[in-house]
Amino acid sequence: MTEWFSNGAVTQLSASDRGLQYGDGLFETVAIRKGEPRLWDFHIDRLTSGCRLLGINMPATEDLYKGIQHAVRQSGVPSSYCIVKIIVTAGAGRRGYGRQLVDTPAVTIAAFPSAPSPIESYRDGIEIALCATRLASNSPLAGCKTLNRLEQVLARSEFVDSAVFEGLTMDADDRIICGTMSNVFVVSGGAIATPSLHSSGVKGVMRRYIIETLKEQGIETGIRTVKLDEMDNMDEVFVCNSQIGIMPVRRCMDKNWSVGEVTRTVMAALAGRGIGECRL
Amino acid sequence: MTEWFSNGAVTQLSASDRGLQYGDGLFETVAIRKGEPRLWDFHIDRLTSGCRLLGINMPATEDLYKGIQHAVRQSGVPSSYCIVKIIVTAGAGRRGYGRQLVDTPAVTIAAFPSAPSPIESYRDGIEIALCATRLASNSPLAGCKTLNRLEQVLARSEFVDSAVFEGLTMDADDRIICGTMSNVFVVSGGAIATPSLHSSGVKGVMRRYIIETLKEQGIETGIRTVKLDEMDNMDEVFVCNSQIGIMPVRRCMDKNWSVGEVTRTVMAALAGRGIGECRL
Repeated sequence: MTEWFSNGAVTQLSASDRGLQYGDGLFETVAIRKGEPRLWDFHIDRLTSGCRLLGINMPATEDLYKGIQHAVRQSGVPSSYCIVKIIVTAGAGRRGYGRQLVDTPAVTIAAFPSAPSPIESYRDGIEIALCATRLASNSPLAGCKTLNRLEQVLARSEFVDSAVFEGLTMDADDRIICGTMSNVFVVSGGAIATPSLHSSGVKGVMRRYIIETLKEQGIETGIRTVKLDEMDNMDEVFVCNSQIGIMPVRRCMDKNWSVGEVTRTVMAALAGRGIGECRL
Repeated sequence: MTEWFSNGAVTQLSASDRGLQYGDGLFETVAIRKGEPRLWDFHIDRLTSGCRLLGINMPATEDLYKGIQHAVRQSGVPSSYCIVKIIVTAGAGRRGYGRQLVDTPAVTIAAFPSAPSPIESYRDGIEIALCATRLASNSPLAGCKTLNRLEQVLARSEFVDSAVFEGLTMDADDRIICGTMSNVFVVSGGAIATPSLHSSGVKGVMRRYIIETLKEQGIETGIRTVKLDEMDNMDEVFVCNSQIGIMPVRRCMDKNWSVGEVTRTVMAALAGRGIGECRL
């Protein structure tokens, strides 16, 4: 079953849906550019992995693709530039946590209007902040974009009235994990790294695209523990997600950075590979 | 807004409800006995704490009480013995994790039929098993009954085809935390203890009722780290939740216990204080 809803007037779903009852499901937030879903294969890969972990049959890619096109048309948002959110849940079910493999998940697809961020954010960098909310560690759902997102809700809500673009989350051991809605990369002494997400956080599709793009250019990204106290020695910091591409970070709390050479190089590489937002 | 639904034919809710989008909400599963919600003050206390943590205005207790009565009548389940599930969410909202304090949460209340477990479970004990799924540690939501319950879904689904009554969950460091739908108490050398839930797990209302009942009788429950390797030295084990009261555990994997004196004493104490299921 695939349903669509547009921004505002929305589809209803059963209150017994396990997506509501337990957060028993997954989602993808896909950038639509020139009518096509960007990094589509990466979204499908991640959703497939998530479905495997949760014991949900992966919906047919073709149906999801058609669903996206339908949602964009139905909602009247510009297909040239918008956002589509796909939610896949275990569907309506009996009370109780346990369940069998889900043959036919419930799929809801919504299209939302979107606009590129101001060019200044890409040129001069953005301000981020450290969240007081810490992420749990050793999560069996680490890396996976599930509907269990309360940590991100609490963390992002710390800054809802603030001008900061993003909140950076750590675990209880001062390990930097990711932003609430982005992944983070750091550059120190010419080496580029991004936090390991085996214990907490979400593996973003743009993070993967950056790692693979750099690898093709012979640049290895270190995927490792990144501790808070390394921040003093970071030469450059940038964040990324499927919608924004890459944005340099110019400030986090009392730390300041200028937009550096490495960040510029990565942005240019992405711009040349279809991530138009990174073109300066 | 309070809505009700009965088992089967259910209320719909907006697909943009943050309860679905992020698990941004809480729930309580209340035992209805002789027309009244059991341990009602404890459910209200926990829901109030949860609302404070999530930044949601607590619904008026009187409205929830009326909602329960209404749900039971509407659904036609026997008010003498049934289950009511209250779900409180942050309601429909814009896309994005961050939000303000929620003034008017969305409340959904459902009544379900229920029947007491067989007397053998109380007399002879039940079989439980260890879950392969480990709970995350240092969770900012530890203790709280939020809608983010995927860990419990994965853990309980390991035994969906099995005769075991419950799955016992640990964290990555072999600390026993709780059952997927119950809390656990252990007795060693005459001392009674239950795992600390400051890092993972849900603080059950029956767990609290047991701790307070024992305290009134001059018996202190140790709330502490309980490691897996202590299992060899446990003399008695029992589980509890709001619906079942207490059930002795007679077997967990290759460990066997007889139903002991302490468990019998605690069951009798609860039976004398309104938990009829514990009366043998």
